[in-house]
Amino acid sequence: MGERSIIFPAQEYRNRVARLQAGMAAQGLGALLLTTPADIFYLTGFLTRFWESPARPWFAIVPLMDDPVAVIPAIGAELMGRTWLHDIRTWDAPNPHDDGISLLAGALAEQVPSQGQIGLPMGLETHLRMPLADYERLHALLAPRQLVDATACIHRVREVKSQAEIAKIRESCAIAGRAFDRVPEFVAEGRPLSGIFRDFQIALLTEGADWVSYVAGGAGPDGYGDVISPAGPQPLRRGDVLMLDTGAVKDGYFCDFDRNFSIGAASDISRRAHAVLWRATEDTLATLRPGLRASDVHAFLCDSLQRRGSTPSGGRLGHGLGITLTEWPSFTPMDDTVLREGMVLTLEPGCFTGDGRIMVHEENIVLNADGAELLSPRAPSELPEITA
Amino acid sequence: MGERSIIFPAQEYRNRVARLQAGMAAQGLGALLLTTPADIFYLTGFLTRFWESPARPWFAIVPLMDDPVAVIPAIGAELMGRTWLHDIRTWDAPNPHDDGISLLAGALAEQVPSQGQIGLPMGLETHLRMPLADYERLHALLAPRQLVDATACIHRVREVKSQAEIAKIRESCAIAGRAFDRVPEFVAEGRPLSGIFRDFQIALLTEGADWVSYVAGGAGPDGYGDVISPAGPQPLRRGDVLMLDTGAVKDGYFCDFDRNFSIGAASDISRRAHAVLWRATEDTLATLRPGLRASDVHAFLCDSLQRRGSTPSGGRLGHGLGITLTEWPSFTPMDDTVLREGMVLTLEPGCFTGDGRIMVHEENIVLNADGAELLSPRAPSELPEITA
Repeated sequence: MGERSIIFPAQEYRNRVARLQAGMAAQGLGALLLTTPADIFYLTGFLTRFWESPARPWFAIVPLMDDPVAVIPAIGAELMGRTWLHDIRTWDAPNPHDDGISLLAGALAEQVPSQGQIGLPMGLETHLRMPLADYERLHALLAPRQLVDATACIHRVREVKSQAEIAKIRESCAIAGRAFDRVPEFVAEGRPLSGIFRDFQIALLTEGADWVSYVAGGAGPDGYGDVISPAGPQPLRRGDVLMLDTGAVKDGYFCDFDRNFSIGAASDISRRAHAVLWRATEDTLATLRPGLRASDVHAFLCDSLQRRGSTPSGGRLGHGLGITLTEWPSFTPMDDTVLREGMVLTLEPGCFTGDGRIMVHEENIVLNADGAELLSPRAPSELPEITA
Repeated sequence: MGERSIIFPAQEYRNRVARLQAGMAAQGLGALLLTTPADIFYLTGFLTRFWESPARPWFAIVPLMDDPVAVIPAIGAELMGRTWLHDIRTWDAPNPHDDGISLLAGALAEQVPSQGQIGLPMGLETHLRMPLADYERLHALLAPRQLVDATACIHRVREVKSQAEIAKIRESCAIAGRAFDRVPEFVAEGRPLSGIFRDFQIALLTEGADWVSYVAGGAGPDGYGDVISPAGPQPLRRGDVLMLDTGAVKDGYFCDFDRNFSIGAASDISRRAHAVLWRATEDTLATLRPGLRASDVHAFLCDSLQRRGSTPSGGRLGHGLGITLTEWPSFTPMDDTVLREGMVLTLEPGCFTGDGRIMVHEENIVLNADGAELLSPRAPSELPEITA
């Protein structure tokens, strides 16, 4: 290899670019313009928590025939210089008069003839991480070149993970699995959720997470009302079901799965809901194959829950996973994305347990040619009870 | 009060909306449309780490004369229902056919007459967190209403913090201060940076952070080449200067400051650089007043460094701070933003220490009528030495 790179050997990134370029050629695109942390990390290996600062836009260009070009704030030059990219152009950002736009327009104009098309992600589950006024200025500078939607071009490549990527996600899952194993060390009746969320993050870091981008959860008798809230000061009570969900990060790759625990002896309702959710997951694990559609998986999970007398909760019942906490496709009735070998997915069936409460169960898998392979350590079939 | 709300009493949010509406009236806007985590948190108190999932757009509308309207995915209904908002409209997202756009267009059309204007942030340090194709569809649905830039309207309000906000940032700063005090417990010659970053995050959580959105740093002889990198496996060596920088979060409010440490006895170069950076900060703390411009602060910091024989590092030498890791204004030569009472700011002078290396020093302050007040516990004037 010999080329400098971050996270993976340069060949991994070259393979990605080759796949993107094949899609670009098929769509008639002269270049792709990428602006988000995930898309730029995917292309380059450029990994930093500095994205947390919204001050500066960052740009990467994929030419149809050549290696990518980074057009970035000078503060990132040294880190981008450690990736496999060799064409890195910088400006001193933030610049209120021209925040990289003339530099970017120039770089794009080199790659794309005036009658050509430049693709950007514009569709579902995307956004443009740059000021809207600057996008309009860029559009004018590049005219008569067209800026067109390239969501499918990017998604069809990113959604199929390499073996190297799958290994990273498996590692994140293993870290979270070890942290979940330690939950009984810090969960007890009377402890506030805020302290439990804190200790869970500490356990994730201790077990090897680089950082913890996501922790959510809930607790209540027989279930919880909500799965996205931060922790409050309320103490756990005997009879509560506690759910903890995490997206821990290792080398830029996420896991995303949850676990449920009964505080004290489990009620019949919560024990039964857990068993049904576990069983619906088991059924689906045995059935998943490339060629199914995302909507088929939703139907399958719902059928499996309903056959056992449970009412599925609304929303999506799983999704893609990788370099963001959630990726497409979504297991909803409306998503017709075809499942392909190499996709990493979550199975996330939820069911109502009464009085506006739900329970949700989640595992992470990779889809192989012959079916699903678990990446998360499988949850126990019976709801664990924490009896201190 | 009596109204339900999160983080702050409802009156805090009502005051914010009144200030936004005054700016909207002055600009002739019929409504504001907000899409980012920070803008929506500012308006409502809606706080969740679920923004980590890019799957779904979220919208909040500020009408000219009425309370805000939330147009959000159903998964957020329960949490948004705990805020002070009473008009919450939901759809089942992600929906590939209509991901909330007709619902959003309808809500905006109720508020804004067909000849009216809807303001969005489009300028420096902003982006639109929704698919670009959906923005264009929204634009068409709302025509002939105009979508115009409202960056200044929002920034002039958000940049002046209330006493309640300042108290939150002070608390985040105190948490980080206590974690920095514990650095000698886990930093030693021979330890890898990756372990130190992990232990620093654990210390921040232990000292009370809800979560740690940002940790960066560097280490090297007499300084570091880069301030935004994640940690690698390289071990600390005697003579290194270690810098740790953090944005820890408490109740949605950030701190953002760093500290430097010498591993073993400090070299003359690093000791002197630290003293000069500390002194330049001290000079600036004594000089800051409302009415200065951001560019004046940059010039002042540079002058102070140069008078003492140091070469300022490039980029901005400080910035706003609050509900994101960095906010406008930027202490650069090009930012003419006028400093106002109630702004929370970072002072972040950096200087070259030779061979492409720099050292950076950072404090957080609030600007009062009579000058700067520290929010971060002041760094020691002499570079601390860690001699295990």
